[in-house]
Amino acid sequence: MSVLVVGSVAFDTIATPSGRVENVLGGSATYFALAASYFTEVRMVAVVGDDFGPEHEEVFKKRKIDTRGIERQNGKTFRWGGRYLENLNEAKTDFTELNVFERFQPQIPPEYADTKFLFLGNIDPSLQAAVKLEMDGVRFTGGDTMNYWINDFRAELLETLKLMNVLLINDAEAKAIAHEPSLPRAARKILTMGPQALVTKHGEYGATIFFREGAFGIGSHPFRAPALPIEEVKDPTGAGDSFAGGFMGYIASQEQLSREVLKRALFYGGVMGSFAVERFGTERLQSLTRAEIDGRFQVFRELTHLE
Amino acid sequence: MSVLVVGSVAFDTIATPSGRVENVLGGSATYFALAASYFTEVRMVAVVGDDFGPEHEEVFKKRKIDTRGIERQNGKTFRWGGRYLENLNEAKTDFTELNVFERFQPQIPPEYADTKFLFLGNIDPSLQAAVKLEMDGVRFTGGDTMNYWINDFRAELLETLKLMNVLLINDAEAKAIAHEPSLPRAARKILTMGPQALVTKHGEYGATIFFREGAFGIGSHPFRAPALPIEEVKDPTGAGDSFAGGFMGYIASQEQLSREVLKRALFYGGVMGSFAVERFGTERLQSLTRAEIDGRFQVFRELTHLE
Repeated sequence: MSVLVVGSVAFDTIATPSGRVENVLGGSATYFALAASYFTEVRMVAVVGDDFGPEHEEVFKKRKIDTRGIERQNGKTFRWGGRYLENLNEAKTDFTELNVFERFQPQIPPEYADTKFLFLGNIDPSLQAAVKLEMDGVRFTGGDTMNYWINDFRAELLETLKLMNVLLINDAEAKAIAHEPSLPRAARKILTMGPQALVTKHGEYGATIFFREGAFGIGSHPFRAPALPIEEVKDPTGAGDSFAGGFMGYIASQEQLSREVLKRALFYGGVMGSFAVERFGTERLQSLTRAEIDGRFQVFRELTHLE
Repeated sequence: MSVLVVGSVAFDTIATPSGRVENVLGGSATYFALAASYFTEVRMVAVVGDDFGPEHEEVFKKRKIDTRGIERQNGKTFRWGGRYLENLNEAKTDFTELNVFERFQPQIPPEYADTKFLFLGNIDPSLQAAVKLEMDGVRFTGGDTMNYWINDFRAELLETLKLMNVLLINDAEAKAIAHEPSLPRAARKILTMGPQALVTKHGEYGATIFFREGAFGIGSHPFRAPALPIEEVKDPTGAGDSFAGGFMGYIASQEQLSREVLKRALFYGGVMGSFAVERFGTERLQSLTRAEIDGRFQVFRELTHLE
């Protein structure tokens, strides 16, 4: 089944201890789409400016990603510049130029009406809600958000959470949404706000999925996927969106929506995030094979597997 | 086989968001010994003052711990006071009274000469080295340290590391020893300094064991054990020493010293740490059963186990 992502396409200027790149293709929808494309058909809804050329379009075409939902407007594409210091866990933003993204109003092409799996990238929660409400055939919705929306658009975010089956965020965001410093308690609280499952990402320590009692299977035990200890992280940009792409892409490729599928999806999310950070921008995500992905999935399994 | 721990016995005054206790039995050797006692015979080398009474001795006797190496001196036992704020990851020390611990010179009773497994708790690295060098029958040595020794006694610590088979520390300590902000790179460096294996503890995210190429088995792949998401951490004091006790105690109970044993030991370390934090001080560690421990071991396995 195909998965639709709504989010940003951007040109990023990134500096890390390993080097620097200028105006490389990025954005949440881009990383998500490339990562998900190794598992299933992917559709995109985003907006770009007239600086988005055939060479950028080609990146998606090569991965057979459906770009009919990428709207072209006069002006420049969203641009972001940032740098990572030694610990690589946190980006310092140098500049944000929203450009055409400032007035982004997601337009769903009629050909996307049969979409069953939807991912609401990190955009204004009111827009996330509008997309979801327009697409009444969707069977499973994942979403992301960030501190800006959590702190300044809380009411809108709480409405949007009611429309998501799974929320994928990091630990600090989960604690901020729940106003709760303990992650397991924050998770329990968020699971009363709408989502039946919550994925919290711990950076270099992996991710945990928490289930609402009885959702997708029996019980309420959480499940953890490790992250690979990586000696050389070149560029952390897009790791979270690549995680979401691997997670949602794998789910959309499966017939059932069971806990076992969600657990494996958590591992595939970690796998795609680990590839993303090995090179600058989307470079590594453009040239993978499914065999490489499944090979690393096995490495992730063995990382915590007792005989 | 029995395991010998050298470290501190203390009386702790602890405040956490869950409450406060005064002068409860603690110290690195205490937590280690109680945790290890569920796996194998335990011997202790430590020093106490004349405020250490039969009721404290009884805590060890009940767990059949050999206390012949606990030296009694005139004066007061080591006392520590500290508090944990909301996040529970870091203790703020209120006071430290070394008392009889200030002139601790570990005395190994002759009956301990046949010890095969040794754990050097977090004390002066020169004392750690002296103990190890005195015990030439020891087959496997684990050790701990902390930032105070890493920063101010680096030369002594580097000598002592050469005598350890496995070092158990947290991520920040590993990075400080190696002068290296990337954990996997720090681990690789430490594995050239003496230990054949390095355990780094990630607090609520579990622990990783790194192996020197070819040590205890084939290859150099690390292995991760998760930590249980615990809603109510009552008191984090002693979690690391309890981890070490579970880890070393399990190893000492096994016939082989293989990677598979070390991996299982990493899980048992996490299990014992997770019990320790459920109650104040050593309360939970005093009253466990092996069935409870193995039950939680299964929960840890299932936490990351794919079908």
